[in-house]
Amino acid sequence: MELLKNRIRKDGKVAEGDVLKVDSFLNHQLDVGLLKSIGEEFYRLYKDDNVTKILTIEASGISIACMAALAFDCPVVFAKKTKTINISGEVYRHEVRSYTHGRTYEITVSKDFIKPGDRILIIDDFLAMGNALEALVSIVENAGATVVGAGIAIEKSYQPGRERLTKQGLRIESLARIDHMSPETGVHFVDDNG
Amino acid sequence: MELLKNRIRKDGKVAEGDVLKVDSFLNHQLDVGLLKSIGEEFYRLYKDDNVTKILTIEASGISIACMAALAFDCPVVFAKKTKTINISGEVYRHEVRSYTHGRTYEITVSKDFIKPGDRILIIDDFLAMGNALEALVSIVENAGATVVGAGIAIEKSYQPGRERLTKQGLRIESLARIDHMSPETGVHFVDDNG
Repeated sequence: MELLKNRIRKDGKVAEGDVLKVDSFLNHQLDVGLLKSIGEEFYRLYKDDNVTKILTIEASGISIACMAALAFDCPVVFAKKTKTINISGEVYRHEVRSYTHGRTYEITVSKDFIKPGDRILIIDDFLAMGNALEALVSIVENAGATVVGAGIAIEKSYQPGRERLTKQGLRIESLARIDHMSPETGVHFVDDNG
Repeated sequence: MELLKNRIRKDGKVAEGDVLKVDSFLNHQLDVGLLKSIGEEFYRLYKDDNVTKILTIEASGISIACMAALAFDCPVVFAKKTKTINISGEVYRHEVRSYTHGRTYEITVSKDFIKPGDRILIIDDFLAMGNALEALVSIVENAGATVVGAGIAIEKSYQPGRERLTKQGLRIESLARIDHMSPETGVHFVDDNG
């Protein structure tokens, strides 16, 4: 998606430690016009797949998922990262190892909101190791629902997430696929020329 | 806002400990059509106030803030509750005491995204004690920007948040104001008859 790639070229900053900072438009300050275009692109890619619900993970996935849900006219469910007394009843749980934050956390989704028969599109802002995405897929499968595919804004294609999950049969649509990046040379996308 | 109040009457659940569960449409599963209407109502209320940016707090405020931002055609900034390496540079910090979760946490906002001259509308899903809202107001004031007001989806009007912050000069627009509630009798709004 050229709109997103151009924005990353313009406003993304590569920092040490394999970090791509997109906090001016995607995960701290949010450009909702851009997010709406991202949501519409996911709709274009998955509109024939009878999506009944979008699943994402707090916090950065929520805004993109909501914009996509406007296009699909379906609800969003976001997996919670923290224990809370505000989720009633039974939940699906799954551990996620985060390399960004250097810790393991548990995500939870209420059993009330994913049911057999649901056709789930999973949306997230980043795909790298694929651990969060894999956990979301597991939760959908435990619920007896179907994963239609994943919609990812930015993929670090040099990390193993895509290959590992594609091998398991998951359809992944990433709008900006990074081939390599460094603080010195910036971001290079998979389909860049030269 | 009748649409929101009716939805709370229909799908909200009052639990022990002064908890109103709205996780089927507002803060775990999200009814984006309803959220869009909420965002448009905030626009109706604040459209003449030259809002330049919407400030909210992760995670439940993000979806409502994004829908409002579509109507205002302005960016969202969401305060972060967790330390992360993905915020670069200097940040505004403020402590918040949460009664829901029984702990104190710190919220942070990058100094890059609130500037003098900004006119900030603060949006959140709940107002009760007002601690999160007060922290967001402090951050905006520390940045030398102007708080236009607050847009709240659900207010527990029997708790001190509104009165305390209104006394400090804050304009607060809440779309569903709860006068009292209990597991036995359900939710009663401030302007209910009888």
